[in-house]
Amino acid sequence: MTRIGILTSGGDCAGLNAVIRAITLRAIQTYGWEVYGIHQGTHGLMRRPVDAIKLDLSFCNGNLLRQGGTVLGTTNKGDPFSYPFADGTIKDISEDLIEGYRLLKLDAVIGIGGDGSQSILRRLAQQGELKLVTIPKTIDDDLSHTEHSVGFMTAVDVATEALDRLQPTAASHDRVMILEVMGRDAGHIALAAGIAGGADIILIPEIPYSMESIARKIKSLRSGGRNFALVVVSEAVGTESGEKATITDLSGKSRYGGISQYLASRITELTGAETRFTVLGHVQRGGQPVFQDRMLASVFGVHAVDLIHQGKFDRMVAWQNRQVIDVPIQQAIDGYQAVDINGTLIKTARGLGISFGDEKI
Amino acid sequence: MTRIGILTSGGDCAGLNAVIRAITLRAIQTYGWEVYGIHQGTHGLMRRPVDAIKLDLSFCNGNLLRQGGTVLGTTNKGDPFSYPFADGTIKDISEDLIEGYRLLKLDAVIGIGGDGSQSILRRLAQQGELKLVTIPKTIDDDLSHTEHSVGFMTAVDVATEALDRLQPTAASHDRVMILEVMGRDAGHIALAAGIAGGADIILIPEIPYSMESIARKIKSLRSGGRNFALVVVSEAVGTESGEKATITDLSGKSRYGGISQYLASRITELTGAETRFTVLGHVQRGGQPVFQDRMLASVFGVHAVDLIHQGKFDRMVAWQNRQVIDVPIQQAIDGYQAVDINGTLIKTARGLGISFGDEKI
Amino acid sequence: MTRIGILTSGGDCAGLNAVIRAITLRAIQTYGWEVYGIHQGTHGLMRRPVDAIKLDLSFCNGNLLRQGGTVLGTTNKGDPFSYPFADGTIKDISEDLIEGYRLLKLDAVIGIGGDGSQSILRRLAQQGELKLVTIPKTIDDDLSHTEHSVGFMTAVDVATEALDRLQPTAASHDRVMILEVMGRDAGHIALAAGIAGGADIILIPEIPYSMESIARKIKSLRSGGRNFALVVVSEAVGTESGEKATITDLSGKSRYGGISQYLASRITELTGAETRFTVLGHVQRGGQPVFQDRMLASVFGVHAVDLIHQGKFDRMVAWQNRQVIDVPIQQAIDGYQAVDINGTLIKTARGLGISFGDEKI
Amino acid sequence: MTRIGILTSGGDCAGLNAVIRAITLRAIQTYGWEVYGIHQGTHGLMRRPVDAIKLDLSFCNGNLLRQGGTVLGTTNKGDPFSYPFADGTIKDISEDLIEGYRLLKLDAVIGIGGDGSQSILRRLAQQGELKLVTIPKTIDDDLSHTEHSVGFMTAVDVATEALDRLQPTAASHDRVMILEVMGRDAGHIALAAGIAGGADIILIPEIPYSMESIARKIKSLRSGGRNFALVVVSEAVGTESGEKATITDLSGKSRYGGISQYLASRITELTGAETRFTVLGHVQRGGQPVFQDRMLASVFGVHAVDLIHQGKFDRMVAWQNRQVIDVPIQQAIDGYQAVDINGTLIKTARGLGISFGDEKI
Repeated sequence: MTRIGILTSGGDCAGLNAVIRAITLRAIQTYGWEVYGIHQGTHGLMRRPVDAIKLDLSFCNGNLLRQGGTVLGTTNKGDPFSYPFADGTIKDISEDLIEGYRLLKLDAVIGIGGDGSQSILRRLAQQGELKLVTIPKTIDDDLSHTEHSVGFMTAVDVATEALDRLQPTAASHDRVMILEVMGRDAGHIALAAGIAGGADIILIPEIPYSMESIARKIKSLRSGGRNFALVVVSEAVGTESGEKATITDLSGKSRYGGISQYLASRITELTGAETRFTVLGHVQRGGQPVFQDRMLASVFGVHAVDLIHQGKFDRMVAWQNRQVIDVPIQQAIDGYQAVDINGTLIKTARGLGISFGDEKI
Repeated sequence: MTRIGILTSGGDCAGLNAVIRAITLRAIQTYGWEVYGIHQGTHGLMRRPVDAIKLDLSFCNGNLLRQGGTVLGTTNKGDPFSYPFADGTIKDISEDLIEGYRLLKLDAVIGIGGDGSQSILRRLAQQGELKLVTIPKTIDDDLSHTEHSVGFMTAVDVATEALDRLQPTAASHDRVMILEVMGRDAGHIALAAGIAGGADIILIPEIPYSMESIARKIKSLRSGGRNFALVVVSEAVGTESGEKATITDLSGKSRYGGISQYLASRITELTGAETRFTVLGHVQRGGQPVFQDRMLASVFGVHAVDLIHQGKFDRMVAWQNRQVIDVPIQQAIDGYQAVDINGTLIKTARGLGISFGDEKI
Repeated sequence: MTRIGILTSGGDCAGLNAVIRAITLRAIQTYGWEVYGIHQGTHGLMRRPVDAIKLDLSFCNGNLLRQGGTVLGTTNKGDPFSYPFADGTIKDISEDLIEGYRLLKLDAVIGIGGDGSQSILRRLAQQGELKLVTIPKTIDDDLSHTEHSVGFMTAVDVATEALDRLQPTAASHDRVMILEVMGRDAGHIALAAGIAGGADIILIPEIPYSMESIARKIKSLRSGGRNFALVVVSEAVGTESGEKATITDLSGKSRYGGISQYLASRITELTGAETRFTVLGHVQRGGQPVFQDRMLASVFGVHAVDLIHQGKFDRMVAWQNRQVIDVPIQQAIDGYQAVDINGTLIKTARGLGISFGDEKI
Repeated sequence: MTRIGILTSGGDCAGLNAVIRAITLRAIQTYGWEVYGIHQGTHGLMRRPVDAIKLDLSFCNGNLLRQGGTVLGTTNKGDPFSYPFADGTIKDISEDLIEGYRLLKLDAVIGIGGDGSQSILRRLAQQGELKLVTIPKTIDDDLSHTEHSVGFMTAVDVATEALDRLQPTAASHDRVMILEVMGRDAGHIALAAGIAGGADIILIPEIPYSMESIARKIKSLRSGGRNFALVVVSEAVGTESGEKATITDLSGKSRYGGISQYLASRITELTGAETRFTVLGHVQRGGQPVFQDRMLASVFGVHAVDLIHQGKFDRMVAWQNRQVIDVPIQQAIDGYQAVDINGTLIKTARGLGISFGDEKI
């Protein structure tokens, strides 16, 4: 009897449960395998007894497909190759994880994660025993070799809805509204939501901007009769001089970069416009997945199980040109999918008159 | 020919356009009056020529009912009795507004606003010439003599949806998620959304809290097997010692109180729990009104016109016990609708085990 | 140890799970009772072993509050006082249900249902042994003594959203769009959604209509420059002559009355307008409850448990004038809440120019 | 001064206004052209004076991007090459349309339509004078050479949401729920929504089915402990024997095929299950476009204008592999995009255990 494990790792997003469901349905119904859900990413493999639950078909009924987050729990803390214990020591616990895999008597693991998680899982797999297939998930959509990762499209949907809500209040009050969206390194969410939500200015880490250019755009809107403006900015964007914007927390730390606050302040300074900013935060992660994330999750889950059935390991499933494919995990990790600054979406945005803050006089 | 004016004043909210539509339809179709939409609250009456637009039936077609914000524009700046001019002088311009009313040849004005706006409009009306009927709107729902004001229910809907999105990501990561919602003085949004969105802790200005009580609640959830917690806090809530929480802006100002950041920091300190906070901000104002706000807006708009037709002025329309009524404006302003701390909703929340941070040991 | 049962009966609706959750939280956390969920309404009490499940706090975690339908299952078939068995015999099985109650060792049952279900449950309770408290639920909102029942507001929300979707397609194609909504005997959903969704004509069973009046309204819209019209009709509405509209099923039965099809055909005949109709059907029942249904459900669930704690039985909880109250069940059943044809909502609708098809020339 | 016209033709869908906006913004802002919106498809060119409106930038402000339907109006009646006049005569009026184009002094027309509309427009263009670029729109997504057409993704979103609502009510009542979705010839909506909405059975015109296979699937779900089932069927699907399912209208016509009613009746007959069906109808067309339709619309609109600028005519814009491209119109029309029965989505659906009613014993 083949036994497989599933784990979700890194930041959660919408569609993870749909992946878990698809894997479980395929593995049990088609192949008659046993499926184990490992709790909290690799942490479940570290605990003794191993923290995992056997999944069955009834687990997949009802609402699982539609539910946000991950019922298995996840973690984005603790690289097992240098794991920080509570007492301050740091230890390589990778062997413990592999022992966890062994104790569960698994024949393979499907890891659902972003580039960081996949990189760690692959390093574990390279030690020889653990067989691995991965499924790309990240709201940032920055994994290469796949058109989209699970979670991205729901995040864009949430960000677009926020712009739909901010537009009328901006127009009612003659304000410049700034929406800060997620995107640790890449501007995909900002770009897509900006186009779909009718932004006037989109700032992404791939395109350096000047405050002067932003101010000019806002003034030109005003002189053209538009009394408000919508700005979308990716959290990864820094200040004009390229430094990371920060807000100092009461406890002395910064969680959100504060770039939207910086922009609000500078725009008022340069244009006299009244500004407001909103940091959308974690509402982008949770909630019901949109239909595309559910479809992508289903496609990926089924194909990942099929790869195991075919004995093909060390592969990441991917979506390209309307088909599911699979690529070597390392290849996916080595690549990086930034916004293509010469691509159709950027050209479309510029074609609509959206400014990226980089226009020269 | 009777001529009436409409103005929206104060912070915008969902449902204002539905009010404007109802007034216009009723006044033109039933009574054959002329209707003028005054731009940007009282500002439109100050400008010369008076900044107003004649509204007709075609204006009411299509999407107006569903649209967020106010197509007339609004303002929450500039008390006409001590109006701050750009050059620093402060002047009483109330007579200019009344002149604007006269220039438009209006027989009455319907003012849609909160307590502040209604108070100013009433003071204008008391000068003798301007005939006034008001319609209550405020997402804070703190106007007295009416069960609800326009805009409140959409704001609660948005806040509840945010909790729906935060719950799965909280559970996936074992986090305490804090959502800061609007409510300048009253906790209505926090209370309603907290019950509807499954919050564990609700903090409102009407109930003083202690961090110790909050920490105890979170610890008890954890010891009971719940790995996450949802906290909703009204922006009006201060620090434990009752001071106003503030974040210093880059420009030296504070816009959002920062209470959610304060709580996040204190909760981590006291419980060790990982925390995240989201300040929902202006997305609570805009966007399509929920059906109740559209209904309430329609009820209020029709009744306000009828009051003018009956020659009843200085009245605010209101909703009580499934009926539209009207009350003297001053009476509505003098009252204040705080959360009833002995009311059904607070009892229900406590009955569900929700903490208000005021439990004694 | 007090033991209580919960059952949901009659057609399902949004908010039932929120009721079940509130009851369970209150009973266990506050009073330390045991709570049993009885499956499929009274059917669970009929089966041996009794078909019920013990509910605990973990059952209330996560998504229960937000989930549509009822996790306990329900039924709208089989009056226990004349129960139709598969073999064609009809038997009074009320004593079996009471025995089921006894076997579960229950001290009281909370029945969540409409008038039919409450009537049956009360008759059972009148036999002496079964102690009963009821909670009103019906998307039709036709139960008396409570402003609203659980499920109504979500149904209106769904119907309003359907009108929001139909309006642009009607306008794009110059069509009369007819939306048939639920409401077995009362027109509450049609009335509320019609006002909120911008309907031109609302047909409800409380107001007889003539096709001539409808045709006149549509023609007058067209002559006034409006190229489309939106009609909302309650499924309970009959043909012009007062007969029940029916569509003959392939199997010889009629499920939906077919009134929208009838209207579409007649309107085309009388006005030449192109018509389309949509029967919204069961999408009105399911899905996530809106925040008001979640709040109402929470209020009702907590109060029902408190009534049991106080030894007050034979009561239905209700919502009146911003407070939870309770009334004798029989009184609630004897009453009937039709649309008040002289009430504020009808007046508002007429004030907006909406036709009820009853205008005389 | 270059002058271009825009017309929308055929059934409306979500995203048309976003196309109109993108065209207008690009043409005016980038190239300084004049843009005319032609009313009601080719009908506007037939009327005298030509029924068109000059579009400007202010027209694009506010809500246009988000609004469903088409503000220009559309029509799916009246082939100009054999136009049916009210008096019963049929005439070729193509020359009148070209004269309308000439009267508007247009240099090119952008036609937004499905295969039928594009075919007619191309035939007009082939007469020599009218220069044409087309943009694919159809909720059916059956146009070839483009991964998606405008309108499809919103339709799937609506259909998926309907399944989300039907699932809990199906489960609460132990019912088989049948949802009939649009798709005149192709099963794309049914397939995508079926996977995303958790359907158990999907019936599409591309795959012949047997009632026996459907009955077997439902029975196997029941014997496996699942008390309900969700069926999605494309309106294009016929009866088991391949004939078109029809419902006879009161006026003797059939609008919806009635396939869902047929299935409901047959399933009850073969399995004894209680069934309900919902015909989703025109709610799939209207309403706010989802973000993907807004993005696709923006991409297509900008590129269509660029094609005119480059003097490239007789081309349809298309989306392939993350890029906008363009293809000869005739090529797009000649092709046809049915569901690929060996493609990833069908395989995924089968992999999840979804039946297409074609399984042999």
